[in-house]
Amino acid sequence: MSEDTTGGAARRRRDKAATRAALLDAARRRFARHGFEGTGLREIAGDVGVDPALIPRYFGTKQALYAEAVQVEVPAGLAADVHAPVPHLADALLRDVVFGDWPEFDGEHPLIAMLRSAGHTGVRDLLRERLCDGYLNTLADRLEGPDAALRAELIGALLVGMGVLRSVVGSPALGAATHEQARPYVARVTAALAAPPRAGRGDQPVSSGSAGSADHSAREPS
Amino acid sequence: MSEDTTGGAARRRRDKAATRAALLDAARRRFARHGFEGTGLREIAGDVGVDPALIPRYFGTKQALYAEAVQVEVPAGLAADVHAPVPHLADALLRDVVFGDWPEFDGEHPLIAMLRSAGHTGVRDLLRERLCDGYLNTLADRLEGPDAALRAELIGALLVGMGVLRSVVGSPALGAATHEQARPYVARVTAALAAPPRAGRGDQPVSSGSAGSADHSAREPS
Repeated sequence: MSEDTTGGAARRRRDKAATRAALLDAARRRFARHGFEGTGLREIAGDVGVDPALIPRYFGTKQALYAEAVQVEVPAGLAADVHAPVPHLADALLRDVVFGDWPEFDGEHPLIAMLRSAGHTGVRDLLRERLCDGYLNTLADRLEGPDAALRAELIGALLVGMGVLRSVVGSPALGAATHEQARPYVARVTAALAAPPRAGRGDQPVSSGSAGSADHSAREPS
Repeated sequence: MSEDTTGGAARRRRDKAATRAALLDAARRRFARHGFEGTGLREIAGDVGVDPALIPRYFGTKQALYAEAVQVEVPAGLAADVHAPVPHLADALLRDVVFGDWPEFDGEHPLIAMLRSAGHTGVRDLLRERLCDGYLNTLADRLEGPDAALRAELIGALLVGMGVLRSVVGSPALGAATHEQARPYVARVTAALAAPPRAGRGDQPVSSGSAGSADHSAREPS
């Protein structure tokens, strides 16, 4: 192959890219298992068998490495269709985020791993940025009526809470449930939150006894 | 006072109770701030100014001390009325648990502090026991129709997720919301989950399919 004589630079670029990918992979697993504070750059470099000095050169600070390692692609369903209604988006998040397999994080949900590191201010900021500026703003933008941001965050709270109950708490019913079993109930909830409050049939707080009358007829998206 | 001559034993009991309470208080704050693994018995004893050897004598193991320190009373609203419908119970949990002030935990939600320690198996077990056997079973027992345990855990997921978004992530809308602002939306969600699936108006998952048919009705033990 001509590469042997002319491809030296290309090979070095490939090697560098492979080392970089291996470091990210090792970082992802170590951060997931031990949290931000419990993970050392030396250990990550050791997993890959390279000089620890490579890490600052490739990634900058430990926090920058963390941010890149725990990056989760926004599910295709969320980005693909800017006109998809909120219950469809929540359904895509449910499948891709809550019920994802996460082999690249050793099977643990990346948000859960981030929660473990949330004592570190930089990690909290990153978590907020990813979750709020990423997923939840996308949802809020598509909700009509008042309190759109609050209603979007409540959808987010349900999904995050499901992840916590499944991954951390190991609660029996959610732990055993399949995506298909959970879907209709999550669809009910997202439809209930996606519907704007209606004048004259307002959302009374529970104590008036009318909580059960909230109308969920909008729950089936087209 | 006659105590000076006859109350020696009573005073010692009082002193012991006061020391025990002070140790629990110090443990609660340390565990909340540093997690289970990051907290030492010696430091807790140091906060109170007593011999660390008192702790095993008063509480047994570190895990037993943890379990007692992070004990949260089930809100009165939940225990008071065994016939209260689920949305009322969820509303009580919202007020007392999600929007609680938790001064005794330095203002941090105790479940969040437990999540931070959830790498420790004993803490995970304790978290599951408190949450599932405590709150969520109480809800499930009052839900009619199929999937009662799953629907109860989804209500729990919403509340836990709200706590996480408020306390850990610091999401803007939920972080700024008052209990009164969140109530009507949480009431919508709990009403949607409290309603049993209806024949003929079945809960279709968002993009068709027959997910709603799974039957968990055998889940209630005698």
